[in-house]
Amino acid sequence: MVIVQKFGGTSVGDLDRIQNVANRVSKTLKEGHQVVVVVSAMSGETNKLIAYAEHYTATPERSELDMLLSSGERVTAALLSIALNAMGHPSISMSGRRAGIVTDSVHTKARIESIDPSIMHAELAKGNVVVVAGFQGVSEAGQVTTLGRGGSDLSAVALAGALEADLCEIYTDVDGIYTTDPRIEPKARKMDQISYDEMLELASLGAKVLQNRSVELAKKLNVNLVTRSSFSDAEGTLITKEENIMEQPLVSGIALDKNQARVSLGGVIDRPGIASDLFTRLADNSVNIDMIIQTLGHDGKTNLDFTVPKTELIDAQTIVEQFVAEGEISEASYDENICKVSIVGVGMKSHTGVAAKAFQTMARENINIMMISTSEIKVSMVIDEKYAELAVRSLHSAYELDK
Amino acid sequence: MVIVQKFGGTSVGDLDRIQNVANRVSKTLKEGHQVVVVVSAMSGETNKLIAYAEHYTATPERSELDMLLSSGERVTAALLSIALNAMGHPSISMSGRRAGIVTDSVHTKARIESIDPSIMHAELAKGNVVVVAGFQGVSEAGQVTTLGRGGSDLSAVALAGALEADLCEIYTDVDGIYTTDPRIEPKARKMDQISYDEMLELASLGAKVLQNRSVELAKKLNVNLVTRSSFSDAEGTLITKEENIMEQPLVSGIALDKNQARVSLGGVIDRPGIASDLFTRLADNSVNIDMIIQTLGHDGKTNLDFTVPKTELIDAQTIVEQFVAEGEISEASYDENICKVSIVGVGMKSHTGVAAKAFQTMARENINIMMISTSEIKVSMVIDEKYAELAVRSLHSAYELDK
Repeated sequence: MVIVQKFGGTSVGDLDRIQNVANRVSKTLKEGHQVVVVVSAMSGETNKLIAYAEHYTATPERSELDMLLSSGERVTAALLSIALNAMGHPSISMSGRRAGIVTDSVHTKARIESIDPSIMHAELAKGNVVVVAGFQGVSEAGQVTTLGRGGSDLSAVALAGALEADLCEIYTDVDGIYTTDPRIEPKARKMDQISYDEMLELASLGAKVLQNRSVELAKKLNVNLVTRSSFSDAEGTLITKEENIMEQPLVSGIALDKNQARVSLGGVIDRPGIASDLFTRLADNSVNIDMIIQTLGHDGKTNLDFTVPKTELIDAQTIVEQFVAEGEISEASYDENICKVSIVGVGMKSHTGVAAKAFQTMARENINIMMISTSEIKVSMVIDEKYAELAVRSLHSAYELDK
Repeated sequence: MVIVQKFGGTSVGDLDRIQNVANRVSKTLKEGHQVVVVVSAMSGETNKLIAYAEHYTATPERSELDMLLSSGERVTAALLSIALNAMGHPSISMSGRRAGIVTDSVHTKARIESIDPSIMHAELAKGNVVVVAGFQGVSEAGQVTTLGRGGSDLSAVALAGALEADLCEIYTDVDGIYTTDPRIEPKARKMDQISYDEMLELASLGAKVLQNRSVELAKKLNVNLVTRSSFSDAEGTLITKEENIMEQPLVSGIALDKNQARVSLGGVIDRPGIASDLFTRLADNSVNIDMIIQTLGHDGKTNLDFTVPKTELIDAQTIVEQFVAEGEISEASYDENICKVSIVGVGMKSHTGVAAKAFQTMARENINIMMISTSEIKVSMVIDEKYAELAVRSLHSAYELDK
């Protein structure tokens, strides 16, 4: 098999940890696989370089930042390659450019446009391990670019796609994706496998592990993604396409998002386009709207409730108050003490009653549901934040995720 | 004018010193020049990375070392470019590869084969300062290479040649080339200018400032080289072709080399090719021979004296003793307590009596001359090491270099 293994900053945090990574790669090689390794900068290195740049200006040129920051991954790649060679595994390190990663020219958050895997293929054919500096590529103009947050994961997924690798393993300090946050529900189980779509809906469970950008790319390129720990031998969680998952559980996991605030608007003038005006203005100011519920109020006016990230509440409030001042909305209230609990599972598509069980569970615990939204594979409920943990544990048990 | 300015590791040793370099570049820009800057890694950085590599093996792959070490100069180049941009001077940093530097593939001590200055020209034409990571290039095969010791100076000289720059300024912590070592003779004067050939012969004076490799390249490419201090505004020393130097002094400087040892062979069998056999064997074992003197001894045998660097004396001794054991040489003695004093000056070509004055000066001080060798522009004498400083001071005064 061709396996792409990606190790993040913590996994390559010091020289001994890089040796540890070399040992793991060695093990994979001895199992008879061909390995391409993607590495991040040693943890702390990127922040150090950013601090250096900010010594001169708060707004360094983005292209220069890319030149600066891309050096960290090169160092790790060379060191890992040296460690592998020293163990008797022929190895060659490569910059993103040399690995064939071409991006657009949006410096510090470039998007991968194409990958030419021919040099990597040639080195693998020679029996070499290929160690690629993650997080970086080269623009059409020939300048080094970086891919932004989670960039090394993206490098790994994109390389796995271009190489038609059998597996792309993302090593972190967490050993997989759990049915819910184990700090809230100790009975949470690590999943063996999950579909791309479920993983995307469970983002809040996986955010510390995988960014949605990487999962979306894996889905697009049909890359089998495994997230596992570089500090243990435990099997991780396979994220793959729905068809590959043999036994699909009704519900895969329970996600909790505490970073939400609710905006409740009452007495909204019932003129065509007012919702459009409001949400356009919010979008123009980079306020992200999650759930929206509109209900008919008394006297022909409507009520409009929506949620925004807590960090964007002030921006949202400023805009809403302009509408209030203009008389288009009679009252607005804001509530930061809410949270969003979601039930996710592809099994919902073919089974009825999944949502009903969620509402029953909330009712049994006397938890009031303020807002509901559903998708094909998800039911989300906004509730009072103080019931967050109770809700998660009750739902986890109701859907028998601890079994 | 187009000016290439090179700043070594001490000059870019920390963030404030990089700011200092930016200020100096700014000054040059304000004088109306176009500037290409070549930078080394921040001092200590390269040694740190080598220590990292040696954590895994004493013999890291040279190509991987190049990948590792080349990152240091990239960081400095990006930081200087950020500092310049922050001061309002549009600037772009480049790796050696992007600056068009193509080398052979002898990793860790590559030789520059060609430079394509077109990208640099394009950026200069746009009004940018071009900041190039020194010490590095790219092989025909596309792998990053480094140029070995003094590599950033070589980058600077080679770029100046390719750009047909008017001047290549090498900034260090020394403010130029002196008529002799000022620690030995406080009356030593900084020279305003000196020819390439004189500089090459005065290597021991300039070794801390410039390596011969760089001076040879400057001569070959006809680059006007200036060595000056990054910590003061004092004018440096211009190293240029002989024709450019208006007033050629008889003697330019006095060099002292304490790193020599003498090997004296007596009773060398007088067969054809014996000297050739001996010196071939020494060369094969990487022993560098400097001066050689052969004299006819009694009974048809010859005497052979030569000097080697002190660090190579043990190797030389091993080989010589093999010849002694084979009966081809009857006696060998070794003397580490010697030094070589040289008088250098292009004026010697057209003036007689320069060497005679040196011998008279030694005689007046009762210093015995053990060996003499001369070239068109140099007279070297091997003397007892204990007279080293006395000889230098007497000669410095005899040729009126303090005037």
